Amino acid sequence: MLARVGNYLCGDGQPLLLIAGPCVLQTRELAMEIGETLAQINERPDVNVVFKASFDKANRTSLAAKRGPGIDAGLRLLEAVGADSGLPVTTDIHLPEQAAPAAEVCELLQIPAFLARQTDLLVAAANTGRAVNVKKGQFMAPTDMRYAIDKLRGSFPVSDTISNPVEDDEPVPGKVLVCERGTFFGYGRLVNDMQSIPIMRSLGAPVVFDATHSVQQPGGLGGATGGNREMVEPLARAAVAIGCDALFFETHPQPETSPSDGANMIYLDQFAGLVDRLLRLRETVEGL
Amino acid sequence: MLARVGNYLCGDGQPLLLIAGPCVLQTRELAMEIGETLAQINERPDVNVVFKASFDKANRTSLAAKRGPGIDAGLRLLEAVGADSGLPVTTDIHLPEQAAPAAEVCELLQIPAFLARQTDLLVAAANTGRAVNVKKGQFMAPTDMRYAIDKLRGSFPVSDTISNPVEDDEPVPGKVLVCERGTFFGYGRLVNDMQSIPIMRSLGAPVVFDATHSVQQPGGLGGATGGNREMVEPLARAAVAIGCDALFFETHPQPETSPSDGANMIYLDQFAGLVDRLLRLRETVEGL
Amino acid sequence: MLARVGNYLCGDGQPLLLIAGPCVLQTRELAMEIGETLAQINERPDVNVVFKASFDKANRTSLAAKRGPGIDAGLRLLEAVGADSGLPVTTDIHLPEQAAPAAEVCELLQIPAFLARQTDLLVAAANTGRAVNVKKGQFMAPTDMRYAIDKLRGSFPVSDTISNPVEDDEPVPGKVLVCERGTFFGYGRLVNDMQSIPIMRSLGAPVVFDATHSVQQPGGLGGATGGNREMVEPLARAAVAIGCDALFFETHPQPETSPSDGANMIYLDQFAGLVDRLLRLRETVEGL
Amino acid sequence: MLARVGNYLCGDGQPLLLIAGPCVLQTRELAMEIGETLAQINERPDVNVVFKASFDKANRTSLAAKRGPGIDAGLRLLEAVGADSGLPVTTDIHLPEQAAPAAEVCELLQIPAFLARQTDLLVAAANTGRAVNVKKGQFMAPTDMRYAIDKLRGSFPVSDTISNPVEDDEPVPGKVLVCERGTFFGYGRLVNDMQSIPIMRSLGAPVVFDATHSVQQPGGLGGATGGNREMVEPLARAAVAIGCDALFFETHPQPETSPSDGANMIYLDQFAGLVDRLLRLRETVEGL
Repeated sequence: MLARVGNYLCGDGQPLLLIAGPCVLQTRELAMEIGETLAQINERPDVNVVFKASFDKANRTSLAAKRGPGIDAGLRLLEAVGADSGLPVTTDIHLPEQAAPAAEVCELLQIPAFLARQTDLLVAAANTGRAVNVKKGQFMAPTDMRYAIDKLRGSFPVSDTISNPVEDDEPVPGKVLVCERGTFFGYGRLVNDMQSIPIMRSLGAPVVFDATHSVQQPGGLGGATGGNREMVEPLARAAVAIGCDALFFETHPQPETSPSDGANMIYLDQFAGLVDRLLRLRETVEGL
Repeated sequence: MLARVGNYLCGDGQPLLLIAGPCVLQTRELAMEIGETLAQINERPDVNVVFKASFDKANRTSLAAKRGPGIDAGLRLLEAVGADSGLPVTTDIHLPEQAAPAAEVCELLQIPAFLARQTDLLVAAANTGRAVNVKKGQFMAPTDMRYAIDKLRGSFPVSDTISNPVEDDEPVPGKVLVCERGTFFGYGRLVNDMQSIPIMRSLGAPVVFDATHSVQQPGGLGGATGGNREMVEPLARAAVAIGCDALFFETHPQPETSPSDGANMIYLDQFAGLVDRLLRLRETVEGL
Repeated sequence: MLARVGNYLCGDGQPLLLIAGPCVLQTRELAMEIGETLAQINERPDVNVVFKASFDKANRTSLAAKRGPGIDAGLRLLEAVGADSGLPVTTDIHLPEQAAPAAEVCELLQIPAFLARQTDLLVAAANTGRAVNVKKGQFMAPTDMRYAIDKLRGSFPVSDTISNPVEDDEPVPGKVLVCERGTFFGYGRLVNDMQSIPIMRSLGAPVVFDATHSVQQPGGLGGATGGNREMVEPLARAAVAIGCDALFFETHPQPETSPSDGANMIYLDQFAGLVDRLLRLRETVEGL
Repeated sequence: MLARVGNYLCGDGQPLLLIAGPCVLQTRELAMEIGETLAQINERPDVNVVFKASFDKANRTSLAAKRGPGIDAGLRLLEAVGADSGLPVTTDIHLPEQAAPAAEVCELLQIPAFLARQTDLLVAAANTGRAVNVKKGQFMAPTDMRYAIDKLRGSFPVSDTISNPVEDDEPVPGKVLVCERGTFFGYGRLVNDMQSIPIMRSLGAPVVFDATHSVQQPGGLGGATGGNREMVEPLARAAVAIGCDALFFETHPQPETSPSDGANMIYLDQFAGLVDRLLRLRETVEGL
């Protein structure tokens, strides 16, 4: 089971796919700094890094919360980071009309968890021919992600569909990733059902574990979303051990200055060390 | 605490607001038949009826599932039902650009539960000046609906904002309804936390209880969503007893022929009887 | 569907069974005061009151928390309250060996929710021939209560079994009640799935709604269990509307002085008013 | 953070503690066969094995289900297995009076999850001076296990208390283990919140991960409890990666013949291989 993301392959026997970045785009300097650190990590042969940042936080808790630079400025900045760092880039889209412009810049399009069932958004993303990473809704069972996968597979361009058939036992890589990012578990709390990782893999798509958002505490901080950074690495270790194909982290040189998710992010200067531990763990897991 | 929906008032001391219709628009004949039955119910002084139908089911489980007539044909049909029955009409919108055209026809705009946190959609809805009914996301705590309410209240036209101030103790009616439609409770099942009704009322908006969708069983039927019609009336009774201001039901002369939600819908010829029982119960509750 | 509790009948067409008392036994004066108030309520024809108090709180959060007078002194006190008030009495048992002595005093034995699957405890309770009220475990589905019911029905004395056959359509009253008291809903919170009331009724036993414990907040107060008294009446109204056969409340003249559950209890001087409102609601429900 | 179980130490820097056996005691031959296999595994320096079997399944779903040989015959058999295999043995107790006789044979006493809050049972177990393994109730938050730990620590014999002080930073080993075995997650399903492992470790007791019971499906099979053996190893890997100190498995040469939990158990002839993979994983984790 494989998926192709730009020039990378993700899945069985492939390097870990690492999706990382600063949550939302802020300054050009910040994006470049993070892109540079990630490009250094990407020199390892056992990892393939994709730079991720949002141009718009479309579901902030409060109207007054900062949202990002918007799609035009955001995509220009992502393009610049990609050119500078040499990394493929990804971003999340919220409306069908955002798919095509985002696909001009991004090798991978991300569908937010709340929107995982919005048919038009999935169709628009697949129509671009780019790889798509769908986050499992906090309100969905892992087996229900088969429907998101089917919507995408039925909507890639014909030339792609030929080379990305639905059958799971085909050696031809697909273009769909699915992502575990936590499931509703009582008001204001998420739980990671680690069984979702092998269950979603059995649907025929490589699985991303979103370690950063899994430790969110929705509504936990009044008008903002809280979090618990200390649990990011423990959960990522568990996800690697149970067989995830990709990891997602938010990282920032100064998380406390980020407009969102600051409580969950990994300090940029600690990120390479974290990745190194997880790759050593993955090497053992692959050999079991 | 009041909200104005067209010429109706909903909330403390007001008639029950009853939002009802056939889930998705099918034929003109069907819509007219249901509108006629609802108009008869509307002759009671203790109830105010709004006709509801969707023009597009935007998050169907499967790509192949029928979605509806689309926004243009759908709004024309809603307009005709409204003219014919004399009832105000409502529909659900999925993209910000749908708010303005829908508002030309509808006295009330409905925000789907999965989209309850999409800021741009809420803002676009409120910008129309129409009343807005936001369903509580299956992944949200009732107290977190305060943020949806705030996003709406901050986005109504200025002339409206003057007459719809944020303070809850104002006698001037607002334009926001919030809706309990079930909360995620393990994979494939929803639970109604009936405490959410008084909790959301305490946020300053009248509360709708969506009796039909509360008995959905997500993912329960393979590629479709299951349901349990027998629980619709018992849950509606409980919601009335705990103090909801409005009820939402799907009703259809032949539920088994509906493209969606057939397992939850009330038979149209049994609907007036159901409403009568609930209104008798509400009369007692109001007198306690 | 009926159950016999002492001289009372509970279930279809019968008066509401009301189980009430001070949580745990404290002084003789307190028990007598509460018994007297309950005896006055019992003069109404539409309600049958059972006095309930615990002799031991066997699962307190902390070792240091007060537990009660113990079984010997506790049963003596219950006996005195019963004699004085003329009410039947009930208590909860925690070990099989407590069933027989408790049954000498109590017309109804209560099985705690955490212990709802302990076979020996259920068998010992049924062996006494007394009616038994089993609380649904916070970790159990309502349909799984059929196994608790079966364990009891298979263990009543033979003479009783003859007159209490398993078939649900028999007019002969049974001796089993089951109780909804909240289900685990994320750490530290319970939810009442009101559907559990009709679902458990369909298993052939009348259903008690425990309004007091349903508003507990487990672990919410450090070493004690928190609660939310304001939600007791709203939830009780919803339970009556959906068709419960019996209600359970804790009541106390000074809840804040109770060794446990103080945050949930109803003030004794407000109790008759609460019961009156619920009985008026039930009268309407019965007539629908 | 350490705990002593017989001659073993469990916790920081210690070999993995492995608790394993056939769920319930059946024949002497079976117990001896399993004990022999476990004794071979115990020859590895990186693991310490405890033989576990129940003498009574006290909370079976149905009255007719087999329960085991009872306490007297069961303890004799456990004693024989211990003598034959050279392994320490453990069993679960359900009533306070079972603690003392079980402690004559067992180096470790196990408290079932449903009974994790029964004060008298915890006190009786600790009074024996043996180590105690408390399973976290399916209805409990991991932080709430502090109360179970406190009840035990306050009840060990005085001579033990001196050498097992409450302070977590003491180098002297304690005698309490806590166990993650799944949390209620909607009717009929459990979820493992892997965060519970580091959270409960932070309470000062080594943590066992019960891989077998975590895959139970309560009520999933009509009158019996279902399960999913395929998820046992994936979950155990995740638990090792996140830092558990001990693992619990049920193993049986022919799981399908076991009176209970057959759907969850590991085949005995595959058990050493499973353990080997987990120990190799743990070695890497310890070196990160």
